[in-house]
Amino acid sequence: MASVNAPRGMRDFLPADKARRERVLAVIRDRYRAHGFDEIETPVVEEYARLHAGIGGDNEKLAFNILRRGLDAETIHAAADDPAALTDLGLRYDLTVPLARFYATNRAALPTVFRSIQIAPVWRAERPQKGRYRQFMQCDIDIIGDASARAEAELIAASLDTLDALSLEGATVRINDRRALDAMLDVFGFAPDERPGVLITIDKLDKIGPSGVTAELRERDATATAVDAFDAFLNRPQTREFLPYGEAQIRKALPEGVADEVVAHLVGIGESVASARPGGHVPLQFDPFLVRGMGYYTGTIFELAHPSVSYSLGGGGRYDGMIGRFLGQDVPAVGFSIGFERIVDLVSLQDPDAAPAVVLVHDRDVPVAELLALKAQLVAEGSRVRLEQRTKNLKALLERATADGYTAFATVRAGADRDDLELKSLSV
Amino acid sequence: MASVNAPRGMRDFLPADKARRERVLAVIRDRYRAHGFDEIETPVVEEYARLHAGIGGDNEKLAFNILRRGLDAETIHAAADDPAALTDLGLRYDLTVPLARFYATNRAALPTVFRSIQIAPVWRAERPQKGRYRQFMQCDIDIIGDASARAEAELIAASLDTLDALSLEGATVRINDRRALDAMLDVFGFAPDERPGVLITIDKLDKIGPSGVTAELRERDATATAVDAFDAFLNRPQTREFLPYGEAQIRKALPEGVADEVVAHLVGIGESVASARPGGHVPLQFDPFLVRGMGYYTGTIFELAHPSVSYSLGGGGRYDGMIGRFLGQDVPAVGFSIGFERIVDLVSLQDPDAAPAVVLVHDRDVPVAELLALKAQLVAEGSRVRLEQRTKNLKALLERATADGYTAFATVRAGADRDDLELKSLSV
Repeated sequence: MASVNAPRGMRDFLPADKARRERVLAVIRDRYRAHGFDEIETPVVEEYARLHAGIGGDNEKLAFNILRRGLDAETIHAAADDPAALTDLGLRYDLTVPLARFYATNRAALPTVFRSIQIAPVWRAERPQKGRYRQFMQCDIDIIGDASARAEAELIAASLDTLDALSLEGATVRINDRRALDAMLDVFGFAPDERPGVLITIDKLDKIGPSGVTAELRERDATATAVDAFDAFLNRPQTREFLPYGEAQIRKALPEGVADEVVAHLVGIGESVASARPGGHVPLQFDPFLVRGMGYYTGTIFELAHPSVSYSLGGGGRYDGMIGRFLGQDVPAVGFSIGFERIVDLVSLQDPDAAPAVVLVHDRDVPVAELLALKAQLVAEGSRVRLEQRTKNLKALLERATADGYTAFATVRAGADRDDLELKSLSV
Repeated sequence: MASVNAPRGMRDFLPADKARRERVLAVIRDRYRAHGFDEIETPVVEEYARLHAGIGGDNEKLAFNILRRGLDAETIHAAADDPAALTDLGLRYDLTVPLARFYATNRAALPTVFRSIQIAPVWRAERPQKGRYRQFMQCDIDIIGDASARAEAELIAASLDTLDALSLEGATVRINDRRALDAMLDVFGFAPDERPGVLITIDKLDKIGPSGVTAELRERDATATAVDAFDAFLNRPQTREFLPYGEAQIRKALPEGVADEVVAHLVGIGESVASARPGGHVPLQFDPFLVRGMGYYTGTIFELAHPSVSYSLGGGGRYDGMIGRFLGQDVPAVGFSIGFERIVDLVSLQDPDAAPAVVLVHDRDVPVAELLALKAQLVAEGSRVRLEQRTKNLKALLERATADGYTAFATVRAGADRDDLELKSLSV
């Protein structure tokens, strides 16, 4: 028969992989909970209109949409020029749109300041490529209802604690504020309608360097005097100078003209995070050129960096306009998403349930009732137990069991009881 | 703004509910794992052709299908008489079809006898009604590659142990065999093509009683002599007589003509389960009229009954023909599914993480850095910590925290440090 695979861009998880993923998720969930966040769950499916309300950015185009049930020929013909008429629901492409909907639905039952955990898969109809999947896990924490810097500080402290618990100590958070970016572009003289394009280019600074950015801005035909001013700013010595995070550095790294309130918010986050971290270390780095893609950010934005990798391990920001969208009113909100699919491959955690895991290898002639009795005894003692009939290739059998987390084995002969079992270690 | 709800027939889970569900799932997962089963995960989405290969029974009609991406007007017009041409993928409606696909894909990497756990949501476009949802959790264990009664015995022992761990002791398993049912209908003289309809009627025995069944069989115009024979059999004294599970009872409860091998298989299951259960108790009940709906069962079928409720809490059976379907060869398989959505409401589990959970109630003037420092200290001590600014209605605030599992609170004033915190119990 022809090969049979999971749908394109989607993955099966075999026992060893599934167990590893669940262990990492358990650590993330535990740390988030310790920091006062509460897990919620929403349906995998949301109404098409909500998924396409303009707050999902480019991801809206990547939604998997669900075919309406009971379509007749007439409706289908009528939908030829408007395929959206064929669908009423879709798979979520992020956890933020569902959170906005959830908050609008359940606000009355939630605390004034609501700290949510969402650990769940999302779907995007992207062209599959290495490390990019059509179904993948997201781990989001969000704080809704708190406009102060406390919210950012709680998110950052929780996220760094989570990385510590995953033995990814030494992470830092690069931070910026959309309002600072906007003010900066104003100061240089970019027109408001040039902003989105200019930000897309600035976002490439890490990849193409200052001269690459300036060149691309000129190609874009951005206001020439603004590009010159930006170029001069990029090449100031103090723009590249490293200073510890704090007011002095933030002021130095920004052009004149950024509102004091924005600076104060950024400084406040630093002070609070410092007080929450071991030794008062401030694991923050102000980056006036950090952009982040999503259009819905309205204030602080941040990205999680770790010395072991060149890509970011997560990020987030403040999106005050969006959570209230389905509610018809403004609600402050800020979120942080850990890049689970990137992190899971960096982490190796020991199985925390130190319960012995035993493979009972038996001959064909051992009565089933005897096997089940032995298994039940070991399970009652707290072990995990797998029965395996002896095969010619015992080594392969035991290797597979080891990969699945089994730590010991014993050979069972007919008539054996618990005391006859000699447990041998499946040493790695 | 108009009301904003989750999609029809689907549910949001707020923190307290989500935590309760996760606790129950953790117990189920833990017990299944102890019994040597290994968790796997498949994508939520499978190819349309696999979901509609005829092995999903009536559920195939209930699948949510996913609209093809990039449809043009011409393709849509052409699909007017065949809406299936509009879709290429669908949401799984059970975990058995995905398991068959998974096994075909990954067989080379799996043990000869593969014991799988699947704990995951499924979707059915049913008319929503009380207790019936369009997205719900299924908890399945399956054993693939073992044709012997050991497989059934391991599934039943694991399921009963799981119910015990959920404090639902005293469950029993009603058991029958499709081959016994088929043989019974042959003996009475029903034609093979009458079987499916006759089984649908017999399945109602609990609801409509023996006379109801006989009446409905006559309405169906089933072979009259067969209905008479069945009626006489139903009304034999020994059909209703209670006997302990075992060969004598099974022989008595069946008409002559059922193969010895079927009886031996059923007896073997009883012996093995008895050896695995405390005190050797056989929690089985042979029920020659148990049918179970799905057409794919080929041998043993069973249902989980508990004295506290009139409906079944789970069930399963042997479906030897099906797992190999995508592989093009026969593979023995048997599965047991716990009815999670039914069980979760019967169970009340204490939060097993006995970590203290503390609400810090603070005045507006406490500096954020002080709050974060206190929180970090308590988290480092092993607590779960939520910050709450004092509101007029402190009682409501604390009640909500209690519902979310918090166990203590303390009032924080400016300048307070860890030693100043007086933890008060949030007694229930």
